Amino acid sequence: MLAFANDYSKGAHPAILQRFIDTNRDPQPGYGQDTYSASAAEKIQAACDCPDAQVTFIAGGTQANAVIISTVLKDYQGVIAADTGHVSIHEAGSIEYTGHKVLTIPGHDGKIDAQELAAYIRGFYDDENHIQMVYPGMVYISQPTEYGTLYSKQELTAISDVCHQYDISLFMDGARLGYGLMSPENDLTLPEIAKLVDVFYIGGTKVGALCGEAVVFTHNNQPEYFNNRVKRRGAQLAKGRLIGVQFETLFTDNLYFKISAHAIEMAAQLKAALTEKGYQFFIASPTNQQFVVVTNEKLAALKQEVDFSFWEKIDDDHTAIRLVTSWATTEEEIAALKAVL
Amino acid sequence: MLAFANDYSKGAHPAILQRFIDTNRDPQPGYGQDTYSASAAEKIQAACDCPDAQVTFIAGGTQANAVIISTVLKDYQGVIAADTGHVSIHEAGSIEYTGHKVLTIPGHDGKIDAQELAAYIRGFYDDENHIQMVYPGMVYISQPTEYGTLYSKQELTAISDVCHQYDISLFMDGARLGYGLMSPENDLTLPEIAKLVDVFYIGGTKVGALCGEAVVFTHNNQPEYFNNRVKRRGAQLAKGRLIGVQFETLFTDNLYFKISAHAIEMAAQLKAALTEKGYQFFIASPTNQQFVVVTNEKLAALKQEVDFSFWEKIDDDHTAIRLVTSWATTEEEIAALKAVL
Amino acid sequence: MLAFANDYSKGAHPAILQRFIDTNRDPQPGYGQDTYSASAAEKIQAACDCPDAQVTFIAGGTQANAVIISTVLKDYQGVIAADTGHVSIHEAGSIEYTGHKVLTIPGHDGKIDAQELAAYIRGFYDDENHIQMVYPGMVYISQPTEYGTLYSKQELTAISDVCHQYDISLFMDGARLGYGLMSPENDLTLPEIAKLVDVFYIGGTKVGALCGEAVVFTHNNQPEYFNNRVKRRGAQLAKGRLIGVQFETLFTDNLYFKISAHAIEMAAQLKAALTEKGYQFFIASPTNQQFVVVTNEKLAALKQEVDFSFWEKIDDDHTAIRLVTSWATTEEEIAALKAVL
Amino acid sequence: MLAFANDYSKGAHPAILQRFIDTNRDPQPGYGQDTYSASAAEKIQAACDCPDAQVTFIAGGTQANAVIISTVLKDYQGVIAADTGHVSIHEAGSIEYTGHKVLTIPGHDGKIDAQELAAYIRGFYDDENHIQMVYPGMVYISQPTEYGTLYSKQELTAISDVCHQYDISLFMDGARLGYGLMSPENDLTLPEIAKLVDVFYIGGTKVGALCGEAVVFTHNNQPEYFNNRVKRRGAQLAKGRLIGVQFETLFTDNLYFKISAHAIEMAAQLKAALTEKGYQFFIASPTNQQFVVVTNEKLAALKQEVDFSFWEKIDDDHTAIRLVTSWATTEEEIAALKAVL
Repeated sequence: MLAFANDYSKGAHPAILQRFIDTNRDPQPGYGQDTYSASAAEKIQAACDCPDAQVTFIAGGTQANAVIISTVLKDYQGVIAADTGHVSIHEAGSIEYTGHKVLTIPGHDGKIDAQELAAYIRGFYDDENHIQMVYPGMVYISQPTEYGTLYSKQELTAISDVCHQYDISLFMDGARLGYGLMSPENDLTLPEIAKLVDVFYIGGTKVGALCGEAVVFTHNNQPEYFNNRVKRRGAQLAKGRLIGVQFETLFTDNLYFKISAHAIEMAAQLKAALTEKGYQFFIASPTNQQFVVVTNEKLAALKQEVDFSFWEKIDDDHTAIRLVTSWATTEEEIAALKAVL
Repeated sequence: MLAFANDYSKGAHPAILQRFIDTNRDPQPGYGQDTYSASAAEKIQAACDCPDAQVTFIAGGTQANAVIISTVLKDYQGVIAADTGHVSIHEAGSIEYTGHKVLTIPGHDGKIDAQELAAYIRGFYDDENHIQMVYPGMVYISQPTEYGTLYSKQELTAISDVCHQYDISLFMDGARLGYGLMSPENDLTLPEIAKLVDVFYIGGTKVGALCGEAVVFTHNNQPEYFNNRVKRRGAQLAKGRLIGVQFETLFTDNLYFKISAHAIEMAAQLKAALTEKGYQFFIASPTNQQFVVVTNEKLAALKQEVDFSFWEKIDDDHTAIRLVTSWATTEEEIAALKAVL
Repeated sequence: MLAFANDYSKGAHPAILQRFIDTNRDPQPGYGQDTYSASAAEKIQAACDCPDAQVTFIAGGTQANAVIISTVLKDYQGVIAADTGHVSIHEAGSIEYTGHKVLTIPGHDGKIDAQELAAYIRGFYDDENHIQMVYPGMVYISQPTEYGTLYSKQELTAISDVCHQYDISLFMDGARLGYGLMSPENDLTLPEIAKLVDVFYIGGTKVGALCGEAVVFTHNNQPEYFNNRVKRRGAQLAKGRLIGVQFETLFTDNLYFKISAHAIEMAAQLKAALTEKGYQFFIASPTNQQFVVVTNEKLAALKQEVDFSFWEKIDDDHTAIRLVTSWATTEEEIAALKAVL
Repeated sequence: MLAFANDYSKGAHPAILQRFIDTNRDPQPGYGQDTYSASAAEKIQAACDCPDAQVTFIAGGTQANAVIISTVLKDYQGVIAADTGHVSIHEAGSIEYTGHKVLTIPGHDGKIDAQELAAYIRGFYDDENHIQMVYPGMVYISQPTEYGTLYSKQELTAISDVCHQYDISLFMDGARLGYGLMSPENDLTLPEIAKLVDVFYIGGTKVGALCGEAVVFTHNNQPEYFNNRVKRRGAQLAKGRLIGVQFETLFTDNLYFKISAHAIEMAAQLKAALTEKGYQFFIASPTNQQFVVVTNEKLAALKQEVDFSFWEKIDDDHTAIRLVTSWATTEEEIAALKAVL
């Protein structure tokens, strides 16, 4: 079977495994106080050109989202997200588990619109009954989105402006951030993102690591006693080195960007192959996730050869599926896929 | 500095790192559905001689405790633990974060007593006002305890009997279970534990893994939709293989038991050295954690050479400290430590 | 100012106040164990023709909703509601405070549609990723709805059938149930409601009481240790008699139905007046809440004389407002209102 | 049966019922915005000699405790209480339901000791592992305590000093505050209490009201958006007038203090009768709750004639029971009780 179902089906970049071996016997303090985590944090600060950035490593994305949202929000606040956002639908209610409501606004190919966001917030404050409603305290976006789409610099700036106008935190879920940054359509740098958002995370799990997301508070705004609160939520590993070593490796010699660029190149080849074979795209994605519509017949045929993701039923005869490249996709895999498309 | 502060300061057993390398390119389904996790679960079932055991892998101990306790307890129930228990004190309120009370009874060198437990539960039901109190729904014990002590077969059986009499689940935190099983004073096998408790976990983080605990429900009693609830609590890794591979390795060729036995042998040498040097033991521990009382002077001197843990202040002149061996402790380290004791 | 803003602006029906006086010196057990609560429960069982109904009194509607939803739902479940439902918007996130997600489907004049509900639930189970989503465990409806509209017997039966097909509880918020039951357009009796839903509450606060809602589990399905869980949620009054006395009075000699019928008669007069004066109705409501669209000019004029509720801005020149009658509305008030419309 | 089981077995002071009648037809805004609540708040500010006091009315004590504690505490903090404190034991885990831990220290006849409190807090900050523990963020005391005992001015000042030294809020549960204030042994005034604590509540339910506690933040320190958070916790009544009217009445013409003084006078007569009859006191209580130890024989005999509370089993032959007076206790009842003692 050809592995195009997602970007987390293989292990880790070999440099990470080698680094595990090289550092293995070095005794380190626990709970994120190890020197690898410290070094990784410094490298991320540098990559973001944000010396005051506060960096914490969390094992997975659902957890990172829940920790960030529940520590930043005040008791009476909720988080605004696209109705198609990961936290809105596919995290098994993990935000509500922390007691907070996800306030949804329409997603457009996975993205929210700054003007619609502003209208929503204005509408809240204009409503005479808003004292009985959940206050918007944060905006959640993902870059790239669940549909592989990207916010442009102009779009992100507009959203950031709305947030700051209403004193609302802007949080970017970057589970696949590397693939976004390396897309030819992207016009946002890491330092620009760090300036425009209040907190974001740089995804490791889907970009070459075995696990781990680097949570970055960008304006010296990390919630107080953050480590204690991370532990309280079960999200602190005794061996913080596990994630520290991985991110230190990923942010040495631009590895994170290089492997992301590779995945994007593989996606370009995949896209070309799909276009050539006459597939109809479900959505125009400039990143490592590609979505096409297939007939039932084609669906059944592909299933014999390829691991892909079911996305959604279009009608009785058609289904949208997702094909994903990653840091680990090889040209051989693309060629083999092309042969069976 | 000599590394005796804890059993999680070094990386992973080399066999685990090698296995990461060997399996790295093999594409696998996510969220715990990978073949390594399945294989690891089978090996654990076999080691427990418990074919119906339901095994789930969780990244860390605080999280494993919170997930188990909050999914097993009913809304109106709390968990009984020793007042010195990890969940009572050192997990930053992670159990209360899930909405449940930790009901404490006295710990005796870290252990609870079956008769005192029975008296507590009887007292609850005898109290005419218990409708206004938190119902005891689970008993939490750790083996070895936070003080390195062990429940004997007789003691565990007595506690298990009390629990079953009152229809209360018995949960054993086995963060250091290997070190308990391999202690010369231990008289409990893994199959016996699996019979006597309703749920326990086999600790990986402190016994040779980079992360991971194997949660085992022993009587086909895993809460329904458990995976969904694990995700809801942020405790599900996309790459379940990360933990699956580690436990598969640990439970192949008895590696888990061999490396645990090594730590116990190192602890025996440590103990002998401490005795020989005339140290006063704070508590008699038959496992890999050793506790001694030192003067302020000695404390200051040791700090120059050894990483150990502060345990508690005894009086103005004396402090209890903890020295810990692990799977990674070498004879050279013991010898070096002996030289500075 | 004429009091048409809502149905909770005045005190209690005089018979209730008299009953407070008559029973005042009678010592009673606390926490809902008083004889008045027991008698009120019996009268409600009789009115529902449901001898097995389990009745508990809760002080207010937000609380009743939160207690019912959070005790019935399992940890991994959410509650389905209309996007316009009270629990979706106007309870300050009280459902999410209990850790549960409100899953919204479109409201049509405040009502959900059985077929859309079925499609939603089927869609959930058909989604291959539903293991990562919140399971639907309950359906919340209100009768009358927040828009004053009513479910017909056919509509409620269809919703009930869908719920039972998928083993989902059906909960009816009856904060204004009396006004629904007495509407000329209503074709549902209390016993029929008790048969079709799994739990509902009969609103007292808005129908003649100073406070209090009667929560009725209809199929011997009250969650175990319910009183303990009510207390745990802060919803148990020491003087249960406060609500017991009120509901005993309301369900003696059909008082609840008589005063509800009076409010509906007043609403009919209000509606006639509005029609006669040429007002445009925002929605066709057969109960005690009436909604009309007014110009800015009219809005300003009315504000001088009448307490009404802002409902929503229609456009720059028009606003929807709500005028509400209650058990306490007098013919004189209607006449006075008519004079200023 | 003679009603000495508690202080909430009868209805309300007649002046309150009369005031319900007098104000019944007056239309008022909901959700605590009514003029009666405003007037009651002013009268309480005056009684506390604390013009900046922020007063909110909550229906019951369990709820008031949960609302206050959960809105004042930060996410990572817990509340310190006596191990015998109401929130520690008898509120069905309602504090843990909000996610917060109750940190217990020994109670001495229901009271905590300032020096032991200081030692506990110092011990927390001295512990090198406190980053893994729950931060103390509030101290909960009750006046009178669950045992009827009172903090003296000196004791309360000492506790207040410790709290302020460590920037911890001091919260006094005054469910029976009137009975404390009117005790001959009391040396604390309401204004002094308002100065020494950060938040307290004046109990209505047990002191003449049908329901209601007046929550008073004394230093302009009410948590922001407090009303919204009260609603979110289900603790906001639509008819805020229900409690507003009651407290307005209680704080007019010193009614609250007069009826409390009456209960204390009745308790003095009760105490004299018990002493005269040779009963052994379980604890020396200067307020309206009296505790005596009785033999099994006496226990059985009293049960025929008197409603009292079981307190605790002393040994196989003896039981501690509680006899309580209230604003509603009559001299006739005392005389009748005396006859059967």
